Amino acid sequence: VIKKEEIASSLMHLQDEICRGLEVLDGTAKFHEDSWERPGGGGGRSRIIQGANIEKGGVNFSAVHGKSNAQMNKVLGLETESFYATGVSIVLHPSNPNVPIIHMNVRYFEAGDVWWYGGGIDVTPHYINKIEASYFHRQLKFICDEFDVNFYREFKEIADDYFYIKHRQETRGVGGIFFDRLNEPRITQEKGLDFILAVGRTFLPIYSKLFNNNYQKPFDEREKQWQLLRRGRYVEFNLVWDKGTKFGLETDGRTESILMSLPQDARWIYDFKVEEGSREQETLSLLNKGIDWINIQ
Amino acid sequence: VIKKEEIASSLMHLQDEICRGLEVLDGTAKFHEDSWERPGGGGGRSRIIQGANIEKGGVNFSAVHGKSNAQMNKVLGLETESFYATGVSIVLHPSNPNVPIIHMNVRYFEAGDVWWYGGGIDVTPHYINKIEASYFHRQLKFICDEFDVNFYREFKEIADDYFYIKHRQETRGVGGIFFDRLNEPRITQEKGLDFILAVGRTFLPIYSKLFNNNYQKPFDEREKQWQLLRRGRYVEFNLVWDKGTKFGLETDGRTESILMSLPQDARWIYDFKVEEGSREQETLSLLNKGIDWINIQ
Repeated sequence: VIKKEEIASSLMHLQDEICRGLEVLDGTAKFHEDSWERPGGGGGRSRIIQGANIEKGGVNFSAVHGKSNAQMNKVLGLETESFYATGVSIVLHPSNPNVPIIHMNVRYFEAGDVWWYGGGIDVTPHYINKIEASYFHRQLKFICDEFDVNFYREFKEIADDYFYIKHRQETRGVGGIFFDRLNEPRITQEKGLDFILAVGRTFLPIYSKLFNNNYQKPFDEREKQWQLLRRGRYVEFNLVWDKGTKFGLETDGRTESILMSLPQDARWIYDFKVEEGSREQETLSLLNKGIDWINIQ
Repeated sequence: VIKKEEIASSLMHLQDEICRGLEVLDGTAKFHEDSWERPGGGGGRSRIIQGANIEKGGVNFSAVHGKSNAQMNKVLGLETESFYATGVSIVLHPSNPNVPIIHMNVRYFEAGDVWWYGGGIDVTPHYINKIEASYFHRQLKFICDEFDVNFYREFKEIADDYFYIKHRQETRGVGGIFFDRLNEPRITQEKGLDFILAVGRTFLPIYSKLFNNNYQKPFDEREKQWQLLRRGRYVEFNLVWDKGTKFGLETDGRTESILMSLPQDARWIYDFKVEEGSREQETLSLLNKGIDWINIQ
């Protein structure tokens, strides 16, 4: 049996590794760290980078514990007196519209005899590049297959359903994988930790590729505006539909850490229409559930 | 007894009056109108202005009817088979940070034997001017007092509670009045229509004053950035807490009309701090419930 402190410690190291890597990737800025304590127990380390290439990025670690309250038990469908939760979550908004937004989250939850892992990784390109989307999904399948040959297919479908902007009838991006309440008999506590660390450790090489391929590409005003509009959709998803954000804001979480996921700048234009045959239209046409990204042509 | 069609017709005229007035106020742009039909019954006229002085403003009229569904009855606490709802709602985001954002909404609802009026008007200054906030609240009290001497006090308190950004522990702005389910014995159906029209007709003269006092004032980069940050808060309120927005997005309302309330541009900066003794700090210090704006010094 792994102690929860050991899981938290692994996740802190993961945060360190990723932050170091992202500073190198951006090449112009360092992370700023805020350590914070949760009044009810535990705390976290929120780290933010605001660079020339990563316009706004947050990498948050937290390990919180304390008494469960009625709302928490209701949301989780549990009846426990205390809980423990630790995780790392990341959102990066790049400066260049040719680089996608990326989100990753891995977490562990324990309450009494109950424990589970959750997390996922998904990509939101401003402009979808099918070759890169396929590469991204192949990497995820490769990681998943080492643990369970059904994981990729299942978790890809969950991501399609989860990262869906219902009021726009659009997916947030090209999806990825998402899983929750992963525990026995599907995976042991030991293997579960290996799995979330494998997901966590794939983040940096994947994003480095997507980033380095694109961050020096030239872009014009129109592409910048499209990026701002797509960020507006990202804000809509996070504030209207994302369960983690809602749960955090409604249960007095640390607002600045929760809303690190928002971009620096976003835009809304009433009833914006894309041009026929444009790159913007192609991207919109691909924001659907159920696309087989691995085999897309 | 007033027919619901008569109420809708009065509200359409109100929309016309206000749009004409706002085109004069902006002085550079005309409204663009989209008429739309609701698949289940009824429809609306969404009007948007994007001018040099009113950066983005929406004035929406709708009159919708049809079969009630389970979710609607649950939210409304009713058991009816059909409903009718008509209203006008407005949000204006000015270009100049010295001009406040304004929101107004008046509406009528009917289902079987049940009917009620709702609505309100509230102001969100980027920089609070106490004299103007006091003027605004005095105008509202003046209108309310003609109908019921308790209305202003009650509806001002409801607005304080409603326009509250819980996760920021800030009010959205200086409040105003907000009322819902206003019916007999407090007001007759006839007087209720007079009341919402009185509220609606006070919108233009009030905003003209707040606008004309300030729209030509010079502003710098810092003030523009503060405006973008306060608009970020406006987005947070509307997407996380506003019941009308949530209801609309969850029940397949017309997304572009619902989200007309969002600003063109908004910004989020991690853990932004205002300077000691600055105008920004003064504004933040006044974003509280329970302020007696009429008598503030």
